[in-house]
Amino acid sequence: MSDLVKSIRSGDPRSLAKAISIVEREDSAAEAILAELYASTGKARIIGITGSPGAGKSTLVAALAKHYRKLEKRIGIVAVDPTSPFSGGAILGDRIRMAELYTDRGVFIRSMATRGFMGGLAKATNDVVDLLDAAGFDIVLVETVGVGQDEVDVIRMVQTNVVVLVPGMGDDIQAIKAGLMEIGDIFAVNKADRPGTDKTVTEVTMMMSLVEEHGDWIPPIVKTVASRGEGIAELESALDKHAQYLAASGELERRNRERVRIRIETLLKEKFMGRLIGGALPASDYEKILDDVLRKRNNPHDAAESVLTRVQF
Amino acid sequence: MSDLVKSIRSGDPRSLAKAISIVEREDSAAEAILAELYASTGKARIIGITGSPGAGKSTLVAALAKHYRKLEKRIGIVAVDPTSPFSGGAILGDRIRMAELYTDRGVFIRSMATRGFMGGLAKATNDVVDLLDAAGFDIVLVETVGVGQDEVDVIRMVQTNVVVLVPGMGDDIQAIKAGLMEIGDIFAVNKADRPGTDKTVTEVTMMMSLVEEHGDWIPPIVKTVASRGEGIAELESALDKHAQYLAASGELERRNRERVRIRIETLLKEKFMGRLIGGALPASDYEKILDDVLRKRNNPHDAAESVLTRVQF
Repeated sequence: MSDLVKSIRSGDPRSLAKAISIVEREDSAAEAILAELYASTGKARIIGITGSPGAGKSTLVAALAKHYRKLEKRIGIVAVDPTSPFSGGAILGDRIRMAELYTDRGVFIRSMATRGFMGGLAKATNDVVDLLDAAGFDIVLVETVGVGQDEVDVIRMVQTNVVVLVPGMGDDIQAIKAGLMEIGDIFAVNKADRPGTDKTVTEVTMMMSLVEEHGDWIPPIVKTVASRGEGIAELESALDKHAQYLAASGELERRNRERVRIRIETLLKEKFMGRLIGGALPASDYEKILDDVLRKRNNPHDAAESVLTRVQF
Repeated sequence: MSDLVKSIRSGDPRSLAKAISIVEREDSAAEAILAELYASTGKARIIGITGSPGAGKSTLVAALAKHYRKLEKRIGIVAVDPTSPFSGGAILGDRIRMAELYTDRGVFIRSMATRGFMGGLAKATNDVVDLLDAAGFDIVLVETVGVGQDEVDVIRMVQTNVVVLVPGMGDDIQAIKAGLMEIGDIFAVNKADRPGTDKTVTEVTMMMSLVEEHGDWIPPIVKTVASRGEGIAELESALDKHAQYLAASGELERRNRERVRIRIETLLKEKFMGRLIGGALPASDYEKILDDVLRKRNNPHDAAESVLTRVQF
C-alpha cells in the first residue's frame, strides 16, 4: 500500500486534501488511489441535503454537523452548491456562522463548486465521498441544489436524501412536483418560525399522497429553524430512523448495489469512449463521421452502427 | 421510403403523432424512421424556453407561438416541464388561454412529461424535435424547467435558449448563479408589470458581467408581460438577431456539430452497453461482478477494466 493511501486511512487531513486534489484534477494517479482505498469504504453514512438556494441548506448542514460533533462523530461536508457559504459564495454572516466548523479537526469541508457547471461532477463528488469514507469520517453530508445534469446523479448516490423547503414559496412546491418529491426520504421545512409553515407542511403531505411508490417508508416532515438549532435533534432522529429502515428493509443493500452499478457503468462508458476515440477510431476518422452527419450525408444511428463495427464483442 | 416517413415529410399531423409515439415507446421501428427522416431535418429553428415553475414560461411560449403564427410560421411546441399547462399540469385559466393553439392546424403541441423524471428524456426530446423539423415546422419551442439530469442535456441541444425570470425572486437570481446564467442567450424578465422589474434587470446585468466567456454575443434582457402579449415583438426581434449572429459567426455550425457529437456519443454508449451486457458479458456474470464490488472483494475501477477485456478494440 502506498504511503499516501496509508495516511488517508489513518485520517490525516493533509493527505486527504492531497488525494482530493488528485481526484479533482483527474490525474492518472487517481484511479490507483481510489482502487486501493475502496476496500476501506462503506462505513460512512452518506446523507444528501438538497433544496433551492435560499432554503437555508448550509445553515442546516452546519447545525447538523455541530449536533453530530456533540455525539463524537467525525463529519465530512461536501458542497456541490456553488452558492453555498462552504463554497465561499455567500454573505459574510453565514461564513462567520460556519467559522467554528473550519477550526474543528473532526470536520472536513470541501467544495466541488469550482468544477463548474458541466462534466463529471457526479463522478468526482462520489470519489471525494469515498475518500472521506475511507479516511474514517462517520457521516458525510452532501449539499446540493438539485439543479443540473450531474447533481441529480449525485443525489441518486446518497443513502438518505433530505429535501429542504421554506414556508411561503409556492414555487418550491411546484419544483417538488417536478421531481424533488420523488427523491426526498425526509423533508425539512426550515425557517419554520415564518408564517405559512403549517400550510407548507400540509402541501407536502398532500403532494406525498400523490407519489405512488414509497415502499414501506413514509417520508417524515420535520420543522426546523436551523439558525437557532431548533428541530435539529428531531431531524437527527428522523435520519436515524431512516438508517434503521434502510438496514432492516434491505433497501440499503439495494441502494448500495445501485450505486455500484452506476459507478461501474459510468466507468465502462468512459473507458469505452476513451479507447474508442483516438484508438480504434482515429480522431480524424471521427471528425469525418461528424462532418458526414452534419452535412446530412449520413444519420446519427447509422454513424454509430458503423463505428461499432470497429469493436469486437 | 416508407409510407409513414412520406406522410410525416408532407406534414400530416396524424402520422407525426404516430411516429412520436413510436419514438417515445422506444419501439425498434423508431431508429429506422429517424434514420430515414434525418436528411429532411435541419431547417427548423429550435428555441429553448427555460425557467422556474411560476415564471410564466408557458404563457410566454403561447404568446410567442401566436406571434409567429401571424408571420405564417408553423410552430411545434415540446413541453418537457411536467407543471406546464401543455402537459396538462396547470390551472384551468392557463389551459383556456392555450385553447386557441390546440385548434390551430399550424401548431403541434407535445408534452414529454409522462416519461417521468429519469432516463432518456434528452434523447427522446431530441428525437421528437427532429420529427417536427422533418415534418416542416419552421420553429420548435422547447419548454423546460432546467431542473434535472436530462433537462440540461435538452437545453444543450437547442440553438437559442431563452431564460425566463420574474421580478422580485431573489432565489431565481441565486439559481442563475448556479448555472442558468451560462446557458441563457436571451433573458426575458416576464411579469414586468410587477414591482422590482428594474432591480431584476440590473441584477441580471451585473451577473452577466461575471460570466467570462460570452463570445461576441452579449445576451439581451427583454421585459415581457406575456399574458398581455407585451414585449413579445421585442423578444422575437432578439431571437431573430440571435439567429443572424449564430449564422454569421459560425456559432450555429459549432452548436449543430456539438449536437451531432452528443447524439452520436449517446447512441454509441447506449449501443455499447446494450451489446456488452447480456452479450459479451452475460447478465449472470455482470451480477457476480456487482456482488464482488459490493462485498469489497473488488473495486469499481478494476471491475470495469476486467469487463473491457471482453471487448476487442
